[in-house]
Amino acid sequence: MIVTYLENCLKEVSVDCVIFGFDGSTVKVLLSKWKNIDYWSLPGGRIKKMEALNAAAQRILQERVGLKEVFLQQFNVFGEINRCEHYDELETTKLIEKSIGEDLSKIPIKHRVLSVGYYALLDINKVKAIPDEYTEECRWMELNEIPLLLFDHNEMIDLAIRTLRREVKYQPIGNLLPDKFTLAEIQKLYESVLDKTFDRRNFYKQITKQDFLVKLAEKRTGSANKSPNLYRFDQSKYEQALEAGMGF
Amino acid sequence: MIVTYLENCLKEVSVDCVIFGFDGSTVKVLLSKWKNIDYWSLPGGRIKKMEALNAAAQRILQERVGLKEVFLQQFNVFGEINRCEHYDELETTKLIEKSIGEDLSKIPIKHRVLSVGYYALLDINKVKAIPDEYTEECRWMELNEIPLLLFDHNEMIDLAIRTLRREVKYQPIGNLLPDKFTLAEIQKLYESVLDKTFDRRNFYKQITKQDFLVKLAEKRTGSANKSPNLYRFDQSKYEQALEAGMGF
Repeated sequence: MIVTYLENCLKEVSVDCVIFGFDGSTVKVLLSKWKNIDYWSLPGGRIKKMEALNAAAQRILQERVGLKEVFLQQFNVFGEINRCEHYDELETTKLIEKSIGEDLSKIPIKHRVLSVGYYALLDINKVKAIPDEYTEECRWMELNEIPLLLFDHNEMIDLAIRTLRREVKYQPIGNLLPDKFTLAEIQKLYESVLDKTFDRRNFYKQITKQDFLVKLAEKRTGSANKSPNLYRFDQSKYEQALEAGMGF
Repeated sequence: MIVTYLENCLKEVSVDCVIFGFDGSTVKVLLSKWKNIDYWSLPGGRIKKMEALNAAAQRILQERVGLKEVFLQQFNVFGEINRCEHYDELETTKLIEKSIGEDLSKIPIKHRVLSVGYYALLDINKVKAIPDEYTEECRWMELNEIPLLLFDHNEMIDLAIRTLRREVKYQPIGNLLPDKFTLAEIQKLYESVLDKTFDRRNFYKQITKQDFLVKLAEKRTGSANKSPNLYRFDQSKYEQALEAGMGF
């Protein structure tokens, strides 16, 4: 079955997706556990012969974890010669064969595969990740609790977060927030993405100066302390600010 | 001959290089003119079957324009289905056949090709670009004088410069300068890369605060005005500043 799938796809290039989500306090990555083995990987897949690369990444996210029209950003092509074997303390091929119950040596011609890495930025609460035919569980994991993954996927996550940090002025990390959020949440988001802490007063002063932030009449209720104000993004102003490189 | 070359390479992925140089006043891109036709392209080529992607990019630069051990940065994978035909007002295939004098329809199996775009940053004076077997001239062109190129190479250049602007805090644009340079030259460099002008006093004040800049005892002589001081980079401090994201 996997052999048939591969026949309709490009042989030498694949796609892997590092999906970042934020739960209000820390940034997490969505991982898939393969059936019958106790190992995890990033969601990934092949590009169809007549499919644009970016469209393939969107389709793979939808097929693998049930997500549609997600913000996706290419961040690197992984092209070492033995890029999977190189990290292969795990004997990945054997594990995959055990997981899918197919003999991979039946694939007529073996190809070296480069992988295009994408990262996605999502509101964790809007996501209902669904395992695909090869996997039995999807789980959001914190960056510091990610186990040894199949293939070179630990390296991919590491480079994805470093790239996101560098590009934070230009990338819509606000996508990680719910539609309405508090200043404390946006501060937590920046702190978690950048792995830094900010002085609360300074951060609030800077962020509330930004014209893309709209203060709502509503407040967050039900918290132990006093009810904080809620905000949302003015989407078109937010996009303009990102285009220019956010100045704060 | 091109058929034989292709047989030893990956069929579905290629590499193209946007080589930026600086001549003391503007940023330029290195282009190659193909033999027998009046059209230009970026230097590019194929990845060998057993060659790491980044190594392929280095080899291609060396073969095509005679450059060794160059700073190279991946910036995008171009993966539209008809990525060359799409821009093909030029009927590129016919032009290439005319240029190389070979019938490309002889290639047994046609493959759709994705291209990994790299940019390079070079001191223009250290480069002696040499045409390869397919091209007859290499020329540095200013960004605003680049003609309609073969393939989707105009789009590649456009995205390369936009990416460089976004990443300017992290990328060694100092590589574009000669070993010894004046403050006026580094200001010109920033202005040309970013397509902005800076106030001279402010720029000098900010840049001379940076610990990676070393003032030399020498001065630039032979200019019409008073002889300006020369500077060089402290390479290890410069690398540290880039790693942290240059704060000016």
